[in-house]
Formats: sequence, structure tokens, C-alpha cells
Amino acid sequence: MKAHTEYITFNTRRKREYINITGRIAGEVAKSGVREGMVLVSAMHITAGVWVNDAEDGLIEDIDEWLEHLAPYRDDYRHHRTGETNGDAHLKSLLVHHQVILPITAGELDLGPWQQVYYAEFDGRRPKRLVIKVMGE
Amino acid sequence: MKAHTEYITFNTRRKREYINITGRIAGEVAKSGVREGMVLVSAMHITAGVWVNDAEDGLIEDIDEWLEHLAPYRDDYRHHRTGETNGDAHLKSLLVHHQVILPITAGELDLGPWQQVYYAEFDGRRPKRLVIKVMGE
Amino acid sequence: MKAHTEYITFNTRRKREYINITGRIAGEVAKSGVREGMVLVSAMHITAGVWVNDAEDGLIEDIDEWLEHLAPYRDDYRHHRTGETNGDAHLKSLLVHHQVILPITAGELDLGPWQQVYYAEFDGRRPKRLVIKVMGE
Repeated sequence: MKAHTEYITFNTRRKREYINITGRIAGEVAKSGVREGMVLVSAMHITAGVWVNDAEDGLIEDIDEWLEHLAPYRDDYRHHRTGETNGDAHLKSLLVHHQVILPITAGELDLGPWQQVYYAEFDGRRPKRLVIKVMGE
Repeated sequence: MKAHTEYITFNTRRKREYINITGRIAGEVAKSGVREGMVLVSAMHITAGVWVNDAEDGLIEDIDEWLEHLAPYRDDYRHHRTGETNGDAHLKSLLVHHQVILPITAGELDLGPWQQVYYAEFDGRRPKRLVIKVMGE
Repeated sequence: MKAHTEYITFNTRRKREYINITGRIAGEVAKSGVREGMVLVSAMHITAGVWVNDAEDGLIEDIDEWLEHLAPYRDDYRHHRTGETNGDAHLKSLLVHHQVILPITAGELDLGPWQQVYYAEFDGRRPKRLVIKVMGE
């Protein structure tokens, strides 16, 4: 069994930002030499998410608006008594999940034709890490 | 390490449909010969989901109504400027997640007594694929 | 390849309860002897969840209130015609997802500084099981 681990650090300009990382993950799969296996892509912070969906700008704006509707910024979250102001970012992370696991078949990411992997930053403007862990043979 | 990959194509009659695929996955686990490991079950489209929950018709109707409430069909999603009309299906996919990973113990799917695996189609009436990837020993 | 499987049974005093299980999972990873791999942490019931987020009491109360807002208790779920009264617990489980998969690097859980693993009970006061499955080398 082979294992290969890589970390990416993001430091977004805006508080919320959605970054297509499909090429980065494919690059790590190639480096790993794994032909059959899986790759875990997981945010290491609790105010970020990872999803697989479309690389279409209109949809990404729709998702951002929808997340703000379902998990809105509010002043009065109990979490803010700690001095934090990012309660909504924790809820958004729970809503979209913080990780995906992608199949690797014949040495390639085994994705459908429109599947793209996104890192979803909900509380940016500071360094945040993501782990990519490849496992297989 | 053994790996076994299978694809299922769905072509549902209705736009939204929920299909119990537990038996299909158990069959692929048996074929793989894996005794200890994991199986990834992942939609290959961005307007479908996979979940583990109850095989109870009333609940499935509740889930469908609830998803339509939280991620409703709307004419005015930005995504629809591309000519698509399935913005809600993308949001529903994000909400329930597009994949699960099931443990395999002693050659069997290691599920709880009521756990059943569903493919959730949110934009059907055309061929859509799902990947099943078994990994272990 | 090594595999190690453990089950935890919870029997919470309250209907909804959120339990930090990070230490328990780290203990199973240590027992497994796996240095590079992954550990799946998955509820075996369909009215419970597992998430990775902050160990901060105020936030946990915010999450509980938010889940009740998005997936409320209601008398009139169709599922309740079966005699059950836990329709909301099924929806809450779908919303937060019932599982996470954690990377293991150099023999340790490879988590970010604030990442803690929680078992989320949405229909407690009876025995409920969780499976921990470690896989790697």
C-alpha cells in the first residue's frame, strides 16, 4: 500500500471565497504513483468546506447566496461571547461538509464529466490549511 | 490490497427519485473478495446525492418535501442564465452530500440494522452514473 | 494492509446530545498500529450524525438551535404514521451527515488545531452504536 500526503495553505483576499482545486488534487495523485485507490480532501479548519460540484460562476454565486440564507451571519450567536464573529462560518461548514473522498482508477481521478472539487472558504483573510491524503496501490 | 470498481447507470422516469441500492453495493463487495476494508459509493453527477437512511416510504416523502423547502426550485437562479433549469438540483446535492463510505467487516457491509443506502436523483430522465469503489484485503 | 474495527455504544440521558469522541478515536488509531492511512467514523443509526467542528459550548448550543430551525420537530411528518415520532432526527442526520473520515499521518490523527470529532445524538435515551474502522499500514 502506498500513502502520499500533501497540505495546501490558502489565504484568501475575501472572507468567503470558492477555489477550484481539481488540478492540484490530480497533481498529487500523479505524484503518489497510486493506480487504484482513493484520495481524501479535507479542510483542516472548522470554518471551511470542500465540495464537488460545477465550475459555473452563476451557480457559485447561487450557492453563496443560499448558504447565507440557510446559515446567515448574525450578531447574537452564543459562540460570539468568546470574542469570535464567525458563528455563521461554522454552520456553513457543517452544511456543505468539510471533506470529500475521490476514487482513483487507472492512475487518474475517477470523476464524472462536470465534477470539479472546490475549497470553500467561509472565514478567510488568514492562512487556512487543507490536507490531501492519497492511499492505494 | 485489492481494489474493485463498478459503475451503475440510472435513467429515472421522474425528475426526482430515490432508489435503494444497498443490495447492489453488497453484490459488488461480494465480487471484490474484500474481507476488511471500505467501499466508496459516489454520484458522478453534480445534481444527485447518496445517503444512508431508512427504507420507509413516508420518510422518503418527508425528505423530498423538506429538500424542496430548503433548496426550492426557482426560475431566477443565476445558473439558469446558462440555459439550465436545474439550479435546485445542485443545491439539493450539496445539502445531502454526493457520497458515503461504508465499512466492510468479515466480508460483509458493516451497516446498522436500519441503514439502507439510497441514490437520490434530483434531475433525472437521462442517464446518470454512480461509482462503487471497493478497497481492502 | 492493516484493518482495525471498534464499536462504541452510546445511551444518552437526553434526546439530543453532542459528545466529543476525539480521544476515543485517537485511542483506536493507536491500538491499530497504523502509521499511514485513514479512519472512518460512522454512526450505525439513521437518527444520529458525526461531525468535525469546535469544542466550544456556545457554538454547540448554536448548532442545536440551528438544526431545530432547519429540521424542526413536527407532529405531522408522514414517517410518524408508522408510530415513530423521530422524523426530525432523520432529517437532522441527513443535514450534518452521519460520518467523517480522518487522515492518519505518522501514527497520529492528522487534524487541524481546532478540529474535534463529535457524535451527534438526535434521538437518544436508548443504545445506539458507532463504528470506527481504521485502515492503512
